[in-house]
Amino acid sequence: MGDVAILGTGLIGGSIGLRIRRERPAAVIVGYDGDPASAARALERGAVTTTKETPEEAVAGAGLVVLALPVDRMAAALKGISGTVPSTSAITDVGSAKTEVVLRGEESFGGRFVGGHPMAGSEQGGIESADADLFEGARWILTPTERTDAAAYRQVTELVASMGASVVALDPHVHDVLLARISHVPQIVAGAVVAAAASGGDQPAHLALAANGFRDVTRIAASPPDLWVAILRSNPEAVLEGLARVQGGLADVAEMIREERWDGLRFWLEGARVSRTNLFEKPGRPVATASLVMLVPDRPGVLAEVTTAAGKMGANIEDLRIIHSSEGGRGRLELSVAGDAEAERLGAVLEGLGYHVLRGD
Amino acid sequence: MGDVAILGTGLIGGSIGLRIRRERPAAVIVGYDGDPASAARALERGAVTTTKETPEEAVAGAGLVVLALPVDRMAAALKGISGTVPSTSAITDVGSAKTEVVLRGEESFGGRFVGGHPMAGSEQGGIESADADLFEGARWILTPTERTDAAAYRQVTELVASMGASVVALDPHVHDVLLARISHVPQIVAGAVVAAAASGGDQPAHLALAANGFRDVTRIAASPPDLWVAILRSNPEAVLEGLARVQGGLADVAEMIREERWDGLRFWLEGARVSRTNLFEKPGRPVATASLVMLVPDRPGVLAEVTTAAGKMGANIEDLRIIHSSEGGRGRLELSVAGDAEAERLGAVLEGLGYHVLRGD
Repeated sequence: MGDVAILGTGLIGGSIGLRIRRERPAAVIVGYDGDPASAARALERGAVTTTKETPEEAVAGAGLVVLALPVDRMAAALKGISGTVPSTSAITDVGSAKTEVVLRGEESFGGRFVGGHPMAGSEQGGIESADADLFEGARWILTPTERTDAAAYRQVTELVASMGASVVALDPHVHDVLLARISHVPQIVAGAVVAAAASGGDQPAHLALAANGFRDVTRIAASPPDLWVAILRSNPEAVLEGLARVQGGLADVAEMIREERWDGLRFWLEGARVSRTNLFEKPGRPVATASLVMLVPDRPGVLAEVTTAAGKMGANIEDLRIIHSSEGGRGRLELSVAGDAEAERLGAVLEGLGYHVLRGD
Repeated sequence: MGDVAILGTGLIGGSIGLRIRRERPAAVIVGYDGDPASAARALERGAVTTTKETPEEAVAGAGLVVLALPVDRMAAALKGISGTVPSTSAITDVGSAKTEVVLRGEESFGGRFVGGHPMAGSEQGGIESADADLFEGARWILTPTERTDAAAYRQVTELVASMGASVVALDPHVHDVLLARISHVPQIVAGAVVAAAASGGDQPAHLALAANGFRDVTRIAASPPDLWVAILRSNPEAVLEGLARVQGGLADVAEMIREERWDGLRFWLEGARVSRTNLFEKPGRPVATASLVMLVPDRPGVLAEVTTAAGKMGANIEDLRIIHSSEGGRGRLELSVAGDAEAERLGAVLEGLGYHVLRGD
């Protein structure tokens, strides 16, 4: 894939570089970081093979550009490099919010920009913590849209696979709504619980009596504020919507307590218990992935149509690739989902959309 | 102290029994449980030395009665045994909310009832999990009031010490406000975060993408609803007040996001970060306790006056005991707090209240 440029050589960027080097020792990896010391350290650690002093220089010869910057600096960086990235290269990022970044990425690079978000590590944390195995076994969300170029998408999925991670394809907006609920809103809630506990003032010493439950609920409140301001301001709508849901839940409970509706409260707590238990009680039995193969017209929008259909029915696309026919005009799309039943359901939905679907191996 | 009666031979009651047996192999421990099979199993495991079929029979010869029932059954149990507990015995409980239970306990037993709440284990969990070391190193809150009898208090603190736990003395209402903030409200919040995440319906499969932060925040949402209904209905006012504080925090954040006040949001997040970090970053340097000794008039209210004064200034009373003078009329009160500075401050406050305070060893 030619040279790889990594903009931002912190924990994520550095780990990506280290893994590429391990997989392909001859790879040329050009690094840039706003903090020259971090870039120099990345070079010393072997996460990059050379460094440049500006993003523009770093991307000049790259076949693949990885933006591993804080999410609030992505837009400016994308604009800055739009003139110097080679016209056939793929560009991806690792930001925690996607709608805005994908919009800016496609403004500058069209379908060659593929949004990404590895579900491991954090944007915080420096090059010293970088690790070639950081993403091993992790999920890595990609957010193709109707504009996404199949070759660029394939290039990025290959990068993800080489990291030891598996792809989950989601619509950018669906990603942001999801992340608001499972990450951004919980972050705020943890802070609000700490603030409420600490606001007494009368008994600060006694707060240390808090047991493990409180420690668990509030652990992430110790995260760096700058990182979280950047994330929250990148995803305001979905965060506000998610916050409103939590606020609604708290208001419901307060009302049940005030009106002494204990059966209602039991029902509510039971619902939460079941949801929590179902969410995470499956690690013991991994479901084998099942594949679908379709012949698809070689036109924009196919990737988005497929991922949106899967998203609507709640199916995870674990892997997805398009192989273009050499004659052009149409291609072969292969995708994997968790288990035969899921494959069957998704196949039926896609047939309903007019695709010709074959079961894979 | 004569026989001990344990009403409720589950995790907590069973663990108390096992520990007493280990400390004093000859002790007579009479057990009762609403579930006869649990009582029989407690006998088999050696957590009690005999069982009775009614609470009344169990407490008949007891010098110390321990109520280890679910918090919503304490009031009825207290009433039930009020005629059969010997008139000089001490009575304590282990419930998660104290104002109501202490009120009922004092109605039936006056100053001989001493409210308690071990900060280990849970009211849920059966005799099979009982363990003589369950309370080793844990804090055990006691809630003396102005009516509390010094002899009963001493008897209960000796029980706590024999469990390997250390006493923290709190006013019952202060306990309930504190527990609402560090336990009861976080429980509701964890449920609300799960409910909000699960309420999408469109992407249930993707919720499994949630990282450790979400898992931490929502872990306790998997707790048994019956237990939590019992706890929440025992502490409604403090829970509603704590909920309102969290709701206020969430509303503040929503407003900052809506108005794009990112500096304000950073400040808020930083406050939460500092509070969370300060709360739990002290395990590495335990502070040696320091003692105060006072001569006190032998009248009701002294214990409550001292614990209230300590609570107001935010000092933990780690241990507290009264030794009555044999001539009567006055006694010697010894208490321990964390560190010399705390002892000095509390000493000054107590002198201000008219006590004559000596520093202990």
